[in-house]
Formats: sequence, structure tokens, C-alpha cells
Amino acid sequence: MNVLVKDKIVASEAGVVSIADRGYQFGDGIYEVIRVLNGKLFTEKEHMDRFYSSAEKMELVIPYTREKLTGLIYDLIKANNVIDGHVYFQLTRGNQDPRNHAFNDDAEGIITGQTKAYPRDMKMLEEGVTAITADDIRWLRCDIKTLNLIGNCMAKTKAQRAGAEEAILHRDGTVTECSSSSLLIVKDGVVKTHPLTNLILPGITRIVIMEAIAAANIPVVEEAFSLEELFAADEVMLASTGHDATPIIAIDGKQVGDGKRGPVTAEIQRYYDLRIEKECGK
Amino acid sequence: MNVLVKDKIVASEAGVVSIADRGYQFGDGIYEVIRVLNGKLFTEKEHMDRFYSSAEKMELVIPYTREKLTGLIYDLIKANNVIDGHVYFQLTRGNQDPRNHAFNDDAEGIITGQTKAYPRDMKMLEEGVTAITADDIRWLRCDIKTLNLIGNCMAKTKAQRAGAEEAILHRDGTVTECSSSSLLIVKDGVVKTHPLTNLILPGITRIVIMEAIAAANIPVVEEAFSLEELFAADEVMLASTGHDATPIIAIDGKQVGDGKRGPVTAEIQRYYDLRIEKECGK
Repeated sequence: MNVLVKDKIVASEAGVVSIADRGYQFGDGIYEVIRVLNGKLFTEKEHMDRFYSSAEKMELVIPYTREKLTGLIYDLIKANNVIDGHVYFQLTRGNQDPRNHAFNDDAEGIITGQTKAYPRDMKMLEEGVTAITADDIRWLRCDIKTLNLIGNCMAKTKAQRAGAEEAILHRDGTVTECSSSSLLIVKDGVVKTHPLTNLILPGITRIVIMEAIAAANIPVVEEAFSLEELFAADEVMLASTGHDATPIIAIDGKQVGDGKRGPVTAEIQRYYDLRIEKECGK
Repeated sequence: MNVLVKDKIVASEAGVVSIADRGYQFGDGIYEVIRVLNGKLFTEKEHMDRFYSSAEKMELVIPYTREKLTGLIYDLIKANNVIDGHVYFQLTRGNQDPRNHAFNDDAEGIITGQTKAYPRDMKMLEEGVTAITADDIRWLRCDIKTLNLIGNCMAKTKAQRAGAEEAILHRDGTVTECSSSSLLIVKDGVVKTHPLTNLILPGITRIVIMEAIAAANIPVVEEAFSLEELFAADEVMLASTGHDATPIIAIDGKQVGDGKRGPVTAEIQRYYDLRIEKECGK
């Protein structure tokens, strides 16, 4: 297996960085995960746009042109022969010695990346997954895709220990998103999802789903909703790079709707498949 | 310069870790900074106690006995001939490949460390520093000394760009602590500081100051206070490993009290000096 370190593809054993890297000492960096299908990056433009947006919000300087960075990502995918899977890459503020909380404006950012191969899980997309609820204890800039992920990790760990796929996060009863995905509910044919504020990540899969909703003329409101509304929903779906739009069929052991993928989720999935075909081929 | 990586002292150029270390990809780890004076660790017990407490809260396993870890820290200090300065060390959850938000329960934690040499800044302790105020946007487990520090870093950067030493954080007008230190105010002879909740770090310097306050029979209340109380205080002091108890003489450009170190701060500093002498010698 190969990994990306700065602008070099190296064997994973050689994939090392300094302990003085601010990514290591402060989690001071950003990242993206892009789905690879048929060897092509899915929603590449949207992910790269968000990466640049995160960098700007964090005052991080991306050390390469967008063309060079995209090329390096494709080099890594090819070096690992990834046909279906994803590519992960991150940017940190680079080395700083002596360590100091204040940013090192003159340091060179460090890009690293890895890949993982896995097919689309059609069974999961049809049969759905389960979730638990958990307190959203994260910071107040969840709109930036940073490496400060302990809150997310704690929630995901809690979910997986409970045998669930995801943790649905809420602040004092108001649902935000999941530990590593967006969340949408459907009630009486209307889709509801948290608006794009500082409390949630602007999900790329959420963008594609919003396009699907528009294309199918499904009513949608971008409003925060409560745990009560969550549990009363007809359909609940999570949205992420690895999950597309996946039905959640039970939450905290309680069945959602009739416990099966609902018609709105199925309609969104049809659009999603077409979008994948258009960008990455059959 | 030498650094610590696992249980080896190596040249700083050899101080590297895998890009698959969860410290690098999630900020998934904890740390401590201990003052070194006369070649000895000051408040060693308190720092090590907190390190173990942080590890427990995060379900992190420290890979060595406390004796071995303390020995490694002293080895690093000696290798770098640090007489006065500090030692920084951190523990991450170790390598995980493929990357996954959920904890890798079976991974081996990774300890790394660095030192920095600097004398006590007696001029700063007498003349004080300035501060700004900033929103506290951090997560809701600030009681754990983790590597998820972007919120702290942003605030500290804002302070230093404004020519100030520290940023005093507040949540909707209620003061918590500073970006990398505790905060105490004095009004009419009474000391006030935020109670030890999930919103602040249990500072080690704060412990020593509380001992000083008790020894000098100074009245103290551990209660949250507002920005209004902060600006109306007679004395304000920040407390950290690198600052001991340092007077803050101006906040957001407004003078605190008479703009000089006050009598309560001076009294606390006298106790602090005695405590240092007791533990580390003259």
C-alpha cells in the first residue's frame, strides 16, 4: 500500500511526519474524503471547493495549485489500483518548533493522503442501518472540516459499541447531524434537515441529495428539528461519502416508520445512482 | 536537540510518527507541559495525576508505568541539558489503518515529547501582561487536556496579533478561562475564579494559587463571573505553567485597577516562589 506525503507517493511504512507537525500537537488541519468509483473521483469539484473553503476559514495555505493537488490524489489512487473505494487527504499547518498555540504564519502546510478500497454496499442502501442518539458536545465551528474530531470519535465509538452504524447528535434536544454524516428526516412527504450554520458540516452528499429533492419536486425545509420530530419521522436517512443516502431504520432501539426504506429515500437513491453513472460511468 | 518518541530519546530530525497515528488524523490524544526549574520537575505529582486523569476520561492506555514514564521525561530533560524551561509530552491512541472515527481499542498508545529552555520571567511577573477577550467556541469537555486545540489556537493567534499575551474566553458573556491558562480576578479583596466544571481545564498552577490563597487566608469564591465583573475587577491574573501567576494590567485596551500588579497577586507570587524553592531549590 502506498500513501501520499507532501508531493511524493511512498510506501506506507515511509509515510511519516515530524512530531512537531501542528497536525500532531494541535489537530491543526483540515481534510476531505472523496469517493472513488470506477477509478474516478465522485463529486470531485464539490469536495475540492469545500477543501479550499476550509483552508480559507482556517487561514491555511494549500502548498500546491488545485491542478497539482488533484493530480497527486489521482496518482495515489492509481498507485494503489483503487477502482471502488475512497481517497482521504489532509492538510496541516506544518512544523513549528518551539511549539506555540499561535499560528506559525510562515510554515509550509503538509499534505498527506491514504486510500481504502471497498465497493458500494447495495444491501446497506436497501436494508438500512441503525443509529443511537448522543449529545453534541463539539465546538461551535462544525462548518469547518477540521482534524479536531475527538467529539465525533467519542460519539461514533458509543454507536459502534451499541451495535449501531451512527450516532445522531443533538444539542439539548435539537438535532444537528451525525458523528460523520448529515441527517435528513421525512414527515408526511416533506424532507427536513438542519440549515447550513456553524453547527453542522456542509455535507457534499447533502448537496447531491438536495439536487435530487429539487429534481423530484419533493418539498424540503432547512430547519432545525427536535428529537421528538426525529422519533416521529416516517423516514430518516444519513448522508455521507461512504453511505450515499442510507435509510436509518431504528434509533435507540425504536423502529423508524415501518422499519423499511421509505419511498422518498428510494427516490433520492435513484437520482444518486444516475449522478454516479453520469460522473463515473456504469 | 533531542526528542522523545515512544521510549527512545532520539535526535529531533528522527522524531517522526506515522501519518496513520490517530493523533495526526483526529487530534486523538492528551498532553502535559511541566515546568523545569533547577533541572527538576515542578508540581510533578499534580501534572502526572492530571495526565492519568485525562487518559482515563479518554479511555487511553498509557503504555508505560508511571515510574518508567517519569524516568523517560527526566532522561529527555537531561539529554537536552534543560536547567530552566519546560518539558512537553503527549500520548495518542496510536496507529489505526484503515482510518475509522471509532476508537481502536487494541492499538498501542504513542508517547512523544520535547523540551524548551527558558528562565522565569521576573519582569513579566512584576510588570504584567495585556489580554484581549474572545468568544469561547470550544467543545464541552474542556476539563480534558486533549490535542483538539484549534479553538484555543485561534484565540491565542487573535491575542498575539493584537499585541496581547492572552485571550480571555467567555461564553455569551460568562468568563471561563484563557486560551492556555486559568484566570482569576480580585474585587474588594475577594478572589473569584470559574469552578472546576466541564468548561475549564483543572489548572495545576490554579491548584498552587488556591493553596497560596488558603495559606494567606484570602477569601475566595469559585463561581462563574461576567465580562462586566472582569472589567470592574481590582486585579486580574492569569495562571499557567509558563506564567505562574502573572498580573493582567489591561484588557481590550482598558486598564485593570491601577494598571499595576496588585497586593493579592503579589502575595500569591510570594507563596509561589516559596513553593518553587521547596520543590526545586533556590
